[in-house]
Amino acid sequence: MEKSDTRPRIGWVGVGVMGAPMAGHLLRAGYRLRVFTRTAARAEPLVRAGAEWAETPRAAAEDADVVCLMVGTPQDVEQVVLGAEGVLSAMSAGTTLIDFTTSSPSLARRIADEAAKRGVAAIDAPVSGGDVGAREARLSIMVGGAEEAVGKVLPLLECLGGTVVRQGGPGMGQHTKMMNQIVIASGMIGVCEGLVYAERAGLDLETALASVGGGAAASWSLANYVPRILKKDFEPGFRVDHFVKDMEIALDECRRMQLELPGLELARALYRRLIDEGWGRKGTQSLVRVTGRSETVS
Amino acid sequence: MEKSDTRPRIGWVGVGVMGAPMAGHLLRAGYRLRVFTRTAARAEPLVRAGAEWAETPRAAAEDADVVCLMVGTPQDVEQVVLGAEGVLSAMSAGTTLIDFTTSSPSLARRIADEAAKRGVAAIDAPVSGGDVGAREARLSIMVGGAEEAVGKVLPLLECLGGTVVRQGGPGMGQHTKMMNQIVIASGMIGVCEGLVYAERAGLDLETALASVGGGAAASWSLANYVPRILKKDFEPGFRVDHFVKDMEIALDECRRMQLELPGLELARALYRRLIDEGWGRKGTQSLVRVTGRSETVS
Repeated sequence: MEKSDTRPRIGWVGVGVMGAPMAGHLLRAGYRLRVFTRTAARAEPLVRAGAEWAETPRAAAEDADVVCLMVGTPQDVEQVVLGAEGVLSAMSAGTTLIDFTTSSPSLARRIADEAAKRGVAAIDAPVSGGDVGAREARLSIMVGGAEEAVGKVLPLLECLGGTVVRQGGPGMGQHTKMMNQIVIASGMIGVCEGLVYAERAGLDLETALASVGGGAAASWSLANYVPRILKKDFEPGFRVDHFVKDMEIALDECRRMQLELPGLELARALYRRLIDEGWGRKGTQSLVRVTGRSETVS
Repeated sequence: MEKSDTRPRIGWVGVGVMGAPMAGHLLRAGYRLRVFTRTAARAEPLVRAGAEWAETPRAAAEDADVVCLMVGTPQDVEQVVLGAEGVLSAMSAGTTLIDFTTSSPSLARRIADEAAKRGVAAIDAPVSGGDVGAREARLSIMVGGAEEAVGKVLPLLECLGGTVVRQGGPGMGQHTKMMNQIVIASGMIGVCEGLVYAERAGLDLETALASVGGGAAASWSLANYVPRILKKDFEPGFRVDHFVKDMEIALDECRRMQLELPGLELARALYRRLIDEGWGRKGTQSLVRVTGRSETVS
């Protein structure tokens, strides 16, 4: 597709394993792209493909119609959006901010309020589907924001995801992602406890899965992670430290809503133990490593 | 199919929601059947269909080639097999005992040892798939027992189930069923915590599921129980009190193996609370009723 000066200008901040392929899709779809990321070398492939380099988040946002973020933590989001060199200070009325980072629902609402003061529409749009989903544009994108604002950027979102669903106003995309992570958190405990029990009982795990994998115990986690665990493959998929970050955001929201979720608390404690033991950058299937140990949760 | 005197004679003990359709399949397949169950009225449809009534478990087992049990608890199994009027005392060398009850792996091994003294082969063969699976002969049957003994009754097992897998020697069928229940236990916590979080956060649950149901959070429990929960349908499926029984068997085995499974412990505590509140005979999806309450786990 050829570039056109009438195509929206995108400022993109954050070119990691998720951000890089996502930004690449927009570039190939003909959007004009200006990128900033903390480690400049990571932006080089995009710059070679036609993106412009920006020295700061603010510079990436200048003259942009849409500013997109895919950074690490809520703290990163806060700094990149609201900080002194943040994107919001460079955005003009009528433009749109889209945060793809899995971040805090409360922060998403606060950003939407701050953005509204400048006439900027803010959308939270966390994704699931991992690096494979990002590369293949098959992400599930959970969108929070005003209906009109979301409608305006829908073509852009649809360049990136297979499932784009507006979940409500600002913060509701993040809340949906938190729901997703909460379901997975205890689900992973069940998968790992089942495996460790089976191993200790002396079952052949492959044979046990032939009985267990197709019925009421079936899940995406069981189907996708158990084969890796049996091969002792603990590479990420989805990183332990990122999962802990997400669970801590969810637990913050729970405190705000006076909601006690003991399964989520337990999962956070177990996964933190993994980080303490140096498994933070490994995949979430590493949970099996601390499952069944008598000293695990103290 | 017509009856034949050369077809094996089956003694069947336990005609509940699972046992009745299972025994019915054997009767229709041409096996000769003698049944005992605690509530005699429950056996009437089978008797009308050609089964013979027995006044005691022992009487059901007399002259039988294969004795099958589908009763309630490990205590029931112990009494029905090893008690004064139990089936084992009537069984002769070369016959086979099949216990379909979800029961204790340790008890299964003890029964196999006792049976061996009389030349009887004992097989543990707990099932999953629920009453629907029982009616449609689509159960997953997890089989523990000596290879030769299992081979001998394979045609009978295949009348009842879609997936029949031998998992090892005596007790290994029960261990596999325990693994299945352990995976489900924490999985149900995740599903219910995710739902309660979403509801509290103000999400539209149907819309949230459109984002969450197809990705890494997907599971049989999410797909099957959430629609019932949204309709406030708490009828069983699988009963809370039966699930608690299974979890307690699993926890007994864990103690024996010095294995701590905190997710399973948590699930047991939450489900026990449901029983305390009068939900014991409702479906396991009722867990959502006690999820997120601050006083839930004390």
